[in-house]
Amino acid sequence: MMQPEEIRGLIRTGKLSEPTAGMAGGYTQANLVILKKELAFEFLLFCHRNQKPCPILDVTEPGSPVPAIVAPGADIRTDFPRYRVYRRGELTDEVTDITSLWEDDMVGFLIGCSFTFEQALLNNGIPVRHIEENRNVPMYQTNIPCVKAGRFQGPMVVSMRPIPEEQVVRAVQVTSRFPAVHGGPVHIGNPEAIGIKNIAHPDFGDAVTIKEGEVPVFWACGVTPQAVAMHVKPELVITHAPGHMLITDIRDEQFGVL
Amino acid sequence: MMQPEEIRGLIRTGKLSEPTAGMAGGYTQANLVILKKELAFEFLLFCHRNQKPCPILDVTEPGSPVPAIVAPGADIRTDFPRYRVYRRGELTDEVTDITSLWEDDMVGFLIGCSFTFEQALLNNGIPVRHIEENRNVPMYQTNIPCVKAGRFQGPMVVSMRPIPEEQVVRAVQVTSRFPAVHGGPVHIGNPEAIGIKNIAHPDFGDAVTIKEGEVPVFWACGVTPQAVAMHVKPELVITHAPGHMLITDIRDEQFGVL
Repeated sequence: MMQPEEIRGLIRTGKLSEPTAGMAGGYTQANLVILKKELAFEFLLFCHRNQKPCPILDVTEPGSPVPAIVAPGADIRTDFPRYRVYRRGELTDEVTDITSLWEDDMVGFLIGCSFTFEQALLNNGIPVRHIEENRNVPMYQTNIPCVKAGRFQGPMVVSMRPIPEEQVVRAVQVTSRFPAVHGGPVHIGNPEAIGIKNIAHPDFGDAVTIKEGEVPVFWACGVTPQAVAMHVKPELVITHAPGHMLITDIRDEQFGVL
Repeated sequence: MMQPEEIRGLIRTGKLSEPTAGMAGGYTQANLVILKKELAFEFLLFCHRNQKPCPILDVTEPGSPVPAIVAPGADIRTDFPRYRVYRRGELTDEVTDITSLWEDDMVGFLIGCSFTFEQALLNNGIPVRHIEENRNVPMYQTNIPCVKAGRFQGPMVVSMRPIPEEQVVRAVQVTSRFPAVHGGPVHIGNPEAIGIKNIAHPDFGDAVTIKEGEVPVFWACGVTPQAVAMHVKPELVITHAPGHMLITDIRDEQFGVL
Protein backbone atom coordinates (compact mmCIF):
# COMPACT_ATOMS: atom_id res chain seq x y z
CA MET A 1 0.00 0.00 0.00
CA MET A 2 1.23 3.49 -0.82
CA GLN A 3 2.38 5.65 2.08
CA PRO A 4 0.92 9.13 2.74
CA GLU A 5 4.02 10.88 1.40
CA GLU A 6 3.89 8.97 -1.92
CA ILE A 7 0.21 9.75 -2.42
CA ARG A 8 0.76 13.42 -1.61
CA GLY A 9 3.61 13.41 -4.15
CA LEU A 10 1.27 12.11 -6.88
CA ILE A 11 -1.32 14.73 -5.96
CA ARG A 12 1.27 17.53 -5.87
CA THR A 13 2.56 16.71 -9.35
CA GLY A 14 -0.94 16.54 -10.82
CA LYS A 15 -0.96 12.76 -11.34
CA LEU A 16 -3.87 12.26 -8.98
CA SER A 17 -6.93 14.47 -8.45
CA GLU A 18 -9.52 11.92 -7.29
CA PRO A 19 -11.41 11.77 -3.99
CA THR A 20 -9.17 10.30 -1.29
CA ALA A 21 -11.64 7.93 0.45
CA GLY A 22 -9.97 4.58 1.08
CA MET A 23 -6.46 5.81 0.23
CA ALA A 24 -3.61 5.08 2.68
CA GLY A 25 -5.92 3.15 5.01
CA GLY A 26 -5.15 3.73 8.67
CA TYR A 27 -3.83 7.27 8.12
CA THR A 28 -6.01 10.19 9.17
CA GLN A 29 -7.37 12.50 6.48
CA ALA A 30 -8.07 16.17 7.05
CA ASN A 31 -10.51 18.85 5.86
CA LEU A 32 -9.24 22.34 5.01
CA VAL A 33 -10.33 25.91 5.66
CA ILE A 34 -7.94 28.73 4.68
CA LEU A 35 -8.65 32.23 5.96
CA LYS A 36 -6.79 35.52 6.21
CA LYS A 37 -5.02 36.13 9.52
CA GLU A 38 -7.42 38.89 10.57
CA LEU A 39 -10.15 36.24 10.95
CA ALA A 40 -7.89 33.49 12.30
CA PHE A 41 -8.29 34.17 16.02
CA GLU A 42 -12.08 34.28 15.86
CA PHE A 43 -12.23 31.15 13.73
CA LEU A 44 -9.84 29.22 15.98
CA LEU A 45 -11.92 30.32 18.96
CA PHE A 46 -15.10 29.21 17.21
CA CYS A 47 -13.55 25.81 16.55
CA HIS A 48 -12.36 25.56 20.14
CA ARG A 49 -15.84 26.36 21.44
CA ASN A 50 -17.43 23.84 19.08
CA GLN A 51 -15.00 20.97 19.14
CA LYS A 52 -17.47 18.28 18.14
CA PRO A 53 -18.23 19.76 14.69
CA CYS A 54 -14.84 21.54 14.37
CA PRO A 55 -12.05 19.32 15.71
CA ILE A 56 -8.80 21.10 14.83
CA LEU A 57 -5.92 18.77 13.94
CA ASP A 58 -3.41 21.44 12.96
CA VAL A 59 -3.15 25.16 12.20
CA THR A 60 -0.39 26.52 9.98
CA GLU A 61 1.71 29.51 11.01
CA PRO A 62 0.47 32.64 9.21
CA GLY A 63 2.01 32.61 5.73
CA SER A 64 3.40 29.09 6.01
CA PRO A 65 1.76 26.36 3.90
CA VAL A 66 3.26 23.58 6.03
CA PRO A 67 1.05 21.59 8.44
CA ALA A 68 3.99 20.99 10.77
CA ILE A 69 2.18 18.76 13.23
CA VAL A 70 0.20 16.35 11.06
CA ALA A 71 2.36 16.27 7.92
CA PRO A 72 5.62 18.26 8.15
CA GLY A 73 6.58 17.27 4.59
CA ALA A 74 3.29 18.48 3.06
CA ASP A 75 2.23 21.74 1.42
CA ILE A 76 -1.43 22.68 1.82
CA ARG A 77 -1.32 24.67 -1.45
CA THR A 78 -0.69 21.59 -3.60
CA ASP A 79 -1.34 18.41 -1.61
CA PHE A 80 -5.14 18.32 -1.63
CA PRO A 81 -6.42 16.83 -4.91
CA ARG A 82 -8.95 19.62 -5.38
CA TYR A 83 -9.83 22.98 -3.84
CA ARG A 84 -12.79 25.33 -3.81
CA VAL A 85 -12.30 29.08 -3.86
CA TYR A 86 -14.99 31.30 -2.35
CA ARG A 87 -15.05 35.09 -2.71
CA ARG A 88 -17.46 36.94 -0.42
CA GLY A 89 -19.23 33.62 0.24
CA GLU A 90 -19.71 32.71 -3.45
CA LEU A 91 -18.00 29.69 -5.04
CA THR A 92 -15.90 31.21 -7.84
CA ASP A 93 -13.45 28.46 -8.74
CA GLU A 94 -12.54 24.81 -8.35
CA VAL A 95 -8.82 24.14 -8.86
CA THR A 96 -6.16 21.50 -8.15
CA ASP A 97 -3.44 23.90 -6.96
CA ILE A 98 -3.71 27.19 -5.06
CA THR A 99 -0.08 28.30 -5.13
CA SER A 100 -0.95 31.34 -7.24
CA LEU A 101 -3.63 32.40 -4.74
CA TRP A 102 -1.45 32.05 -1.66
CA GLU A 103 -0.68 35.17 0.36
CA ASP A 104 1.60 35.96 3.27
CA ASP A 105 -1.21 36.43 5.77
CA MET A 106 -3.08 33.19 5.11
CA VAL A 107 -3.70 30.60 7.81
CA GLY A 108 -4.71 27.01 7.07
CA PHE A 109 -6.97 25.10 9.45
CA LEU A 110 -6.85 21.31 9.17
CA ILE A 111 -9.97 19.77 10.60
CA GLY A 112 -10.68 16.16 11.56
CA CYS A 113 -12.84 14.03 9.29
CA SER A 114 -15.31 11.24 9.93
CA PHE A 115 -13.33 8.79 7.74
CA THR A 116 -11.30 8.09 10.89
CA PHE A 117 -14.15 7.01 13.12
CA GLU A 118 -15.91 5.16 10.30
CA GLN A 119 -12.88 2.92 10.03
CA ALA A 120 -13.11 2.36 13.79
CA LEU A 121 -16.81 1.44 13.43
CA LEU A 122 -16.00 -1.02 10.62
CA ASN A 123 -13.16 -2.52 12.67
CA ASN A 124 -15.76 -3.18 15.38
CA GLY A 125 -18.14 -4.93 13.01
CA ILE A 126 -20.58 -2.01 12.91
CA PRO A 127 -21.97 -1.37 9.40
CA VAL A 128 -21.52 2.02 7.72
CA ARG A 129 -24.45 2.26 5.33
CA HIS A 130 -23.28 4.97 2.91
CA ILE A 131 -20.06 3.02 2.32
CA GLU A 132 -22.09 -0.16 1.69
CA GLU A 133 -24.34 1.75 -0.72
CA ASN A 134 -21.43 3.65 -2.27
CA ARG A 135 -22.98 7.04 -1.58
CA ASN A 136 -21.96 10.23 0.17
CA VAL A 137 -22.91 10.35 3.86
CA PRO A 138 -26.30 12.07 4.47
CA MET A 139 -25.93 15.42 6.26
CA TYR A 140 -28.58 17.62 7.86
CA GLN A 141 -28.87 21.14 9.16
CA THR A 142 -30.09 20.97 12.80
CA ASN A 143 -31.59 23.36 15.33
CA ILE A 144 -28.58 22.85 17.62
CA PRO A 145 -26.85 26.24 17.86
CA CYS A 146 -23.08 26.38 17.80
CA VAL A 147 -21.46 28.59 20.44
CA LYS A 148 -20.76 31.97 18.79
CA ALA A 149 -17.22 33.40 18.56
CA GLY A 150 -16.86 36.90 17.19
CA ARG A 151 -18.42 36.95 13.70
CA PHE A 152 -18.67 33.17 13.46
CA GLN A 153 -21.99 31.56 14.33
CA GLY A 154 -24.65 29.22 12.97
CA PRO A 155 -26.38 25.89 13.51
CA MET A 156 -24.60 22.56 13.71
CA VAL A 157 -24.60 20.29 10.67
CA VAL A 158 -24.72 16.57 11.48
CA SER A 159 -24.08 13.39 9.55
CA MET A 160 -26.32 10.35 10.03
CA ARG A 161 -25.52 6.65 10.07
CA PRO A 162 -28.23 4.02 10.68
CA ILE A 163 -26.99 1.62 13.38
CA PRO A 164 -28.60 -1.70 14.36
CA GLU A 165 -30.30 -1.27 17.76
CA GLU A 166 -28.10 -3.83 19.45
CA GLN A 167 -24.91 -2.04 18.33
CA VAL A 168 -25.81 1.53 19.31
CA VAL A 169 -24.05 1.40 22.68
CA ARG A 170 -20.89 0.03 21.08
CA ALA A 171 -21.06 2.72 18.37
CA VAL A 172 -21.13 5.38 21.10
CA GLN A 173 -18.16 3.79 22.88
CA VAL A 174 -16.07 3.31 19.75
CA THR A 175 -16.52 6.86 18.43
CA SER A 176 -16.14 8.49 21.87
CA ARG A 177 -12.52 7.28 21.82
CA PHE A 178 -11.86 9.78 18.99
CA PRO A 179 -12.74 13.31 20.13
CA ALA A 180 -10.21 14.66 17.57
CA VAL A 181 -12.47 13.44 14.76
CA HIS A 182 -15.96 14.44 16.01
CA GLY A 183 -16.08 11.96 18.93
CA GLY A 184 -19.31 10.40 20.22
CA PRO A 185 -22.70 11.09 18.60
CA VAL A 186 -24.62 14.27 19.38
CA HIS A 187 -28.00 12.53 19.15
CA ILE A 188 -29.54 9.06 18.98
CA GLY A 189 -32.98 8.39 17.48
CA ASN A 190 -35.82 10.86 16.79
CA PRO A 191 -34.62 13.27 14.06
CA GLU A 192 -37.27 15.88 14.92
CA ALA A 193 -35.76 16.38 18.37
CA ILE A 194 -32.83 18.14 16.69
CA GLY A 195 -34.88 19.93 14.05
CA ILE A 196 -34.61 17.46 11.17
CA LYS A 197 -38.00 17.41 9.41
CA ASN A 198 -37.43 14.70 6.80
CA ILE A 199 -34.73 12.09 7.26
CA ALA A 200 -35.24 10.96 3.64
CA HIS A 201 -34.15 14.36 2.33
CA PRO A 202 -30.70 15.30 3.60
CA ASP A 203 -29.53 18.91 3.16
CA PHE A 204 -26.15 17.73 1.86
CA GLY A 205 -24.93 14.36 0.55
CA ASP A 206 -27.21 11.42 -0.30
CA ALA A 207 -30.08 9.62 1.45
CA VAL A 208 -29.30 6.07 2.62
CA THR A 209 -31.48 3.09 3.53
CA ILE A 210 -32.58 2.78 7.17
CA LYS A 211 -33.50 -0.87 7.75
CA GLU A 212 -36.01 -2.34 10.20
CA GLY A 213 -34.44 -2.46 13.66
CA GLU A 214 -31.96 0.30 12.92
CA VAL A 215 -31.73 3.63 14.74
CA PRO A 216 -30.54 6.85 13.10
CA VAL A 217 -27.47 8.05 14.97
CA PHE A 218 -26.18 11.60 14.41
CA TRP A 219 -22.62 12.85 14.64
CA ALA A 220 -21.38 16.45 14.47
CA CYS A 221 -20.12 17.10 10.94
CA GLY A 222 -17.09 18.91 9.54
CA VAL A 223 -19.30 20.76 7.07
CA THR A 224 -20.30 22.97 10.02
CA PRO A 225 -17.11 25.10 10.12
CA GLN A 226 -17.17 25.59 6.34
CA ALA A 227 -20.83 26.66 6.44
CA VAL A 228 -20.11 29.01 9.31
CA ALA A 229 -17.06 30.51 7.56
CA MET A 230 -19.11 31.13 4.39
CA HIS A 231 -21.81 32.83 6.41
CA VAL A 232 -19.33 35.60 7.33
CA LYS A 233 -18.68 36.13 3.58
CA PRO A 234 -14.98 36.90 3.93
CA GLU A 235 -13.14 38.42 0.96
CA LEU A 236 -11.51 35.03 0.27
CA VAL A 237 -11.90 31.53 1.72
CA ILE A 238 -10.31 28.43 0.28
CA THR A 239 -11.46 24.93 1.25
CA HIS A 240 -10.85 21.41 -0.01
CA ALA A 241 -13.45 20.09 -2.47
CA PRO A 242 -15.75 17.57 -0.74
CA GLY A 243 -14.09 14.17 -0.42
CA HIS A 244 -10.72 15.52 -1.64
CA MET A 245 -8.75 15.51 1.60
CA LEU A 246 -5.16 15.80 2.81
CA ILE A 247 -3.68 12.47 3.82
CA THR A 248 -1.68 13.12 6.98
CA ASP A 249 1.24 11.21 8.50
CA ILE A 250 -0.73 10.48 11.67
CA ARG A 251 -2.34 7.09 12.12
CA ASP A 252 -6.01 7.02 13.10
CA GLU A 253 -5.22 5.11 16.29
CA GLN A 254 -2.94 7.91 17.51
CA PHE A 255 -6.08 10.02 17.98
CA GLY A 256 -7.64 7.46 20.35
CA VAL A 257 -7.88 9.00 23.84
CA LEU A 258 -7.38 5.67 25.57
CA MET B 1 -21.81 23.79 51.09
CA MET B 2 -21.62 27.16 49.32
CA GLN B 3 -22.29 27.19 45.60
CA PRO B 4 -19.80 28.65 43.06
CA GLU B 5 -21.88 31.78 42.56
CA GLU B 6 -22.00 32.55 46.30
CA ILE B 7 -18.26 32.12 46.70
CA ARG B 8 -17.60 34.32 43.65
CA GLY B 9 -19.91 36.92 45.19
CA LEU B 10 -17.84 36.96 48.41
CA ILE B 11 -14.65 37.26 46.38
CA ARG B 12 -16.08 40.03 44.18
CA THR B 13 -17.11 42.14 47.17
CA GLY B 14 -13.72 41.75 48.87
CA LYS B 15 -14.97 39.50 51.68
CA LEU B 16 -12.75 36.61 50.60
CA SER B 17 -9.21 36.74 49.21
CA GLU B 18 -7.83 33.35 50.30
CA PRO B 19 -6.56 30.48 48.14
CA THR B 20 -9.51 28.52 46.73
CA ALA B 21 -8.26 24.95 47.26
CA GLY B 22 -11.06 22.81 48.70
CA MET B 23 -13.79 25.42 48.08
CA ALA B 24 -17.01 24.35 46.30
CA GLY B 25 -15.83 20.73 46.09
CA GLY B 26 -16.81 19.05 42.84
CA TYR B 27 -16.73 22.29 40.81
CA THR B 28 -13.83 22.87 38.45
CA GLN B 29 -11.43 25.69 39.20
CA ALA B 30 -9.56 27.61 36.50
CA ASN B 31 -6.21 29.36 36.03
CA LEU B 32 -6.06 32.74 34.28
CA VAL B 33 -3.88 34.40 31.66
CA ILE B 34 -4.99 37.79 30.28
CA LEU B 35 -3.27 39.13 27.16
CA LYS B 36 -3.89 41.88 24.63
CA LYS B 37 -5.75 40.79 21.49
CA GLU B 38 -2.71 41.19 19.25
CA LEU B 39 -1.13 38.18 21.01
CA ALA B 40 -4.36 36.21 21.43
CA PHE B 41 -4.24 34.15 18.25
CA GLU B 42 -0.66 33.01 18.79
CA PHE B 43 -1.33 32.18 22.43
CA LEU B 44 -4.52 30.24 21.63
CA LEU B 45 -2.60 28.37 18.95
CA PHE B 46 0.19 27.63 21.43
CA CYS B 47 -2.35 26.25 23.88
CA HIS B 48 -4.00 24.20 21.16
CA ARG B 49 -0.65 22.71 20.12
CA ASN B 50 0.24 21.94 23.74
CA GLN B 51 -3.02 20.77 25.22
CA LYS B 52 -1.53 18.71 28.01
CA PRO B 53 0.13 21.67 29.78
CA CYS B 54 -2.35 24.26 28.41
CA PRO B 55 -5.90 22.86 28.46
CA ILE B 56 -8.17 25.77 27.55
CA LEU B 57 -11.54 25.73 29.33
CA ASP B 58 -12.82 29.08 28.05
CA VAL B 59 -11.66 32.20 26.21
CA THR B 60 -13.45 35.50 26.68
CA GLU B 61 -14.48 37.64 23.70
CA PRO B 62 -12.01 40.50 23.24
CA GLY B 63 -13.01 43.25 25.68
CA SER B 64 -15.57 41.12 27.53
CA PRO B 65 -14.71 40.03 31.08
CA VAL B 66 -17.36 37.27 31.05
CA PRO B 67 -16.31 33.60 30.78
CA ALA B 68 -19.56 32.73 29.02
CA ILE B 69 -18.96 28.98 28.80
CA VAL B 70 -17.68 28.04 32.24
CA ALA B 71 -19.32 30.75 34.40
CA PRO B 72 -21.69 33.08 32.52
CA GLY B 73 -22.45 35.01 35.72
CA ALA B 74 -18.79 35.69 36.54
CA ASP B 75 -16.45 38.60 35.84
CA ILE B 76 -12.77 37.72 35.43
CA ARG B 77 -11.76 41.23 36.63
CA THR B 78 -13.13 40.69 40.13
CA ASP B 79 -13.90 37.01 40.74
CA PHE B 80 -10.40 35.65 41.32
CA PRO B 81 -9.30 36.28 44.93
CA ARG B 82 -5.91 37.61 43.86
CA TYR B 83 -4.14 38.63 40.65
CA ARG B 84 -0.57 39.21 39.54
CA VAL B 85 0.27 41.98 37.10
CA TYR B 86 3.36 41.61 34.91
CA ARG B 87 4.78 44.40 32.76
CA ARG B 88 7.37 43.36 30.16
CA GLY B 89 7.77 40.07 32.02
CA GLU B 90 8.35 41.63 35.47
CA LEU B 91 5.93 41.17 38.37
CA THR B 92 4.88 44.73 39.25
CA ASP B 93 1.76 44.26 41.35
CA GLU B 94 -0.40 41.83 43.28
CA VAL B 95 -4.02 43.00 43.59
CA THR B 96 -7.49 41.66 44.39
CA ASP B 97 -9.33 43.48 41.58
CA ILE B 98 -8.17 44.41 38.07
CA THR B 99 -11.15 46.49 36.94
CA SER B 100 -9.02 49.64 36.72
CA LEU B 101 -6.48 47.82 34.50
CA TRP B 102 -9.04 46.38 32.09
CA GLU B 103 -8.92 47.50 28.46
CA ASP B 104 -11.14 46.95 25.44
CA ASP B 105 -8.68 44.72 23.62
CA MET B 106 -7.99 42.27 26.44
CA VAL B 107 -8.68 38.55 26.15
CA GLY B 108 -8.90 36.20 29.13
CA PHE B 109 -7.79 32.58 28.83
CA LEU B 110 -9.18 30.20 31.46
CA ILE B 111 -7.00 27.16 31.78
CA GLY B 112 -7.72 23.82 33.43
CA CYS B 113 -6.16 23.07 36.81
CA SER B 114 -4.92 19.87 38.43
CA PHE B 115 -7.32 20.27 41.38
CA THR B 116 -9.88 18.49 39.17
CA PHE B 117 -7.90 15.32 38.55
CA GLU B 118 -6.55 15.26 42.10
CA GLN B 119 -10.11 14.95 43.34
CA ALA B 120 -10.59 12.07 40.88
CA LEU B 121 -7.42 10.40 42.24
CA LEU B 122 -8.66 10.78 45.84
CA ASN B 123 -12.08 9.44 44.85
CA ASN B 124 -10.25 6.35 43.58
CA GLY B 125 -8.33 5.83 46.82
CA ILE B 126 -5.04 7.05 45.34
CA PRO B 127 -3.09 9.25 47.79
CA VAL B 128 -2.09 12.82 46.84
CA ARG B 129 1.02 13.47 48.89
CA HIS B 130 1.20 17.28 48.83
CA ILE B 131 -2.40 17.46 50.08
CA GLU B 132 -1.55 14.98 52.86
CA GLU B 133 1.53 17.04 53.76
CA ASN B 134 -0.30 20.35 53.36
CA ARG B 135 2.22 21.70 50.87
CA ASN B 136 2.15 23.12 47.37
CA VAL B 137 2.61 20.50 44.62
CA PRO B 138 6.27 20.11 43.53
CA MET B 139 6.86 21.40 39.98
CA TYR B 140 9.88 20.97 37.72
CA GLN B 141 11.21 22.46 34.52
CA THR B 142 11.82 19.59 32.03
CA ASN B 143 13.72 19.09 28.79
CA ILE B 144 10.45 18.34 26.98
CA PRO B 145 10.00 21.10 24.40
CA CYS B 146 6.53 22.54 23.83
CA VAL B 147 5.45 22.92 20.21
CA LYS B 148 6.19 26.54 19.21
CA ALA B 149 3.46 28.90 18.00
CA GLY B 150 4.54 32.31 16.76
CA ARG B 151 6.44 34.04 19.57
CA PHE B 152 5.38 31.49 22.21
CA GLN B 153 7.81 28.69 23.02
CA GLY B 154 9.62 27.02 25.90
CA PRO B 155 10.00 23.80 27.87
CA MET B 156 7.15 22.00 29.59
CA VAL B 157 6.76 22.39 33.34
CA VAL B 158 5.47 19.27 35.11
CA SER B 159 4.02 18.55 38.54
CA MET B 160 4.97 15.37 40.42
CA ARG B 161 2.93 13.08 42.62
CA PRO B 162 4.45 9.95 44.21
CA ILE B 163 2.12 7.02 43.52
CA PRO B 164 2.32 3.54 45.13
CA GLU B 165 3.61 1.08 42.49
CA GLU B 166 0.44 -0.99 42.56
CA GLN B 167 -1.75 2.07 41.85
CA VAL B 168 0.21 3.58 38.93
CA VAL B 169 -1.91 1.94 36.23
CA ARG B 170 -5.11 3.13 37.88
CA ALA B 171 -3.68 6.65 38.25
CA VAL B 172 -3.03 6.70 34.48
CA GLN B 173 -6.57 5.50 33.75
CA VAL B 174 -8.27 7.91 36.15
CA THR B 175 -6.44 11.02 34.94
CA SER B 176 -6.66 10.07 31.25
CA ARG B 177 -10.44 10.54 31.58
CA PHE B 178 -9.82 14.28 32.04
CA PRO B 179 -7.92 15.68 29.03
CA ALA B 180 -9.47 19.11 29.77
CA VAL B 181 -7.42 19.28 32.98
CA HIS B 182 -4.00 17.96 31.87
CA GLY B 183 -5.12 14.36 31.25
CA GLY B 184 -2.85 11.33 31.70
CA PRO B 185 0.74 11.67 32.94
CA VAL B 186 3.55 12.68 30.59
CA HIS B 187 6.11 10.47 32.32
CA ILE B 188 6.34 7.66 34.89
CA GLY B 189 9.49 6.96 36.90
CA ASN B 190 13.09 8.10 36.24
CA PRO B 191 13.17 11.92 36.60
CA GLU B 192 16.43 12.25 34.64
CA ALA B 193 14.76 10.90 31.51
CA ILE B 194 12.87 14.21 31.26
CA GLY B 195 15.74 16.41 32.39
CA ILE B 196 15.01 16.64 36.12
CA LYS B 197 18.36 16.55 37.94
CA ASN B 198 17.22 16.56 41.56
CA ILE B 199 13.74 15.42 42.52
CA ALA B 200 14.29 16.78 46.06
CA HIS B 201 14.63 20.35 44.74
CA PRO B 202 11.60 21.36 42.70
CA ASP B 203 11.83 24.52 40.57
CA PHE B 204 8.45 25.71 41.87
CA GLY B 205 6.29 24.65 44.84
CA ASP B 206 7.50 22.40 47.68
CA ALA B 207 9.31 19.06 47.88
CA VAL B 208 7.19 16.14 49.15
CA THR B 209 8.06 12.76 50.67
CA ILE B 210 8.50 9.84 48.25
CA LYS B 211 8.00 6.66 50.26
CA GLU B 212 9.51 3.20 49.72
CA GLY B 213 7.57 1.46 46.94
CA GLU B 214 6.33 4.69 45.39
CA VAL B 215 7.04 5.88 41.85
CA PRO B 216 7.26 9.56 40.88
CA VAL B 217 4.59 10.26 38.29
CA PHE B 218 4.70 13.49 36.26
CA TRP B 219 1.80 15.44 34.81
CA ALA B 220 1.94 18.44 32.48
CA CYS B 221 1.45 21.59 34.58
CA GLY B 222 -0.55 24.78 34.06
CA VAL B 223 2.47 26.85 35.07
CA THR B 224 3.78 26.13 31.55
CA PRO B 225 1.56 28.64 29.68
CA GLN B 226 2.27 31.37 32.24
CA ALA B 227 6.03 30.76 31.99
CA VAL B 228 5.81 30.80 28.20
CA ALA B 229 3.72 34.00 28.17
CA MET B 230 6.24 35.74 30.45
CA HIS B 231 9.11 34.69 28.20
CA VAL B 232 7.64 36.86 25.40
CA LYS B 233 7.71 39.84 27.82
CA PRO B 234 4.49 41.43 26.57
CA GLU B 235 3.69 45.00 27.60
CA LEU B 236 1.09 43.69 30.06
CA VAL B 237 0.04 40.22 31.26
CA ILE B 238 -2.33 39.57 34.13
CA THR B 239 -2.60 36.16 35.77
CA HIS B 240 -4.24 34.76 38.89
CA ALA B 241 -1.97 34.53 41.94
CA PRO B 242 -0.94 30.89 42.54
CA GLY B 243 -3.71 28.92 44.24
CA HIS B 244 -6.20 31.80 43.87
CA MET B 245 -8.48 30.40 41.15
CA LEU B 246 -11.83 31.07 39.57
CA ILE B 247 -14.51 28.65 40.75
CA THR B 248 -16.54 27.78 37.66
CA ASP B 249 -20.13 26.51 37.32
CA ILE B 250 -18.95 23.29 35.66
CA ARG B 251 -18.70 20.13 37.70
CA ASP B 252 -15.45 18.18 37.48
CA GLU B 253 -17.24 15.11 36.19
CA GLN B 254 -18.55 17.04 33.18
CA PHE B 255 -14.97 17.10 31.86
CA GLY B 256 -14.70 13.29 31.92
CA VAL B 257 -14.43 12.02 28.33
CA LEU B 258 -16.26 8.79 29.09
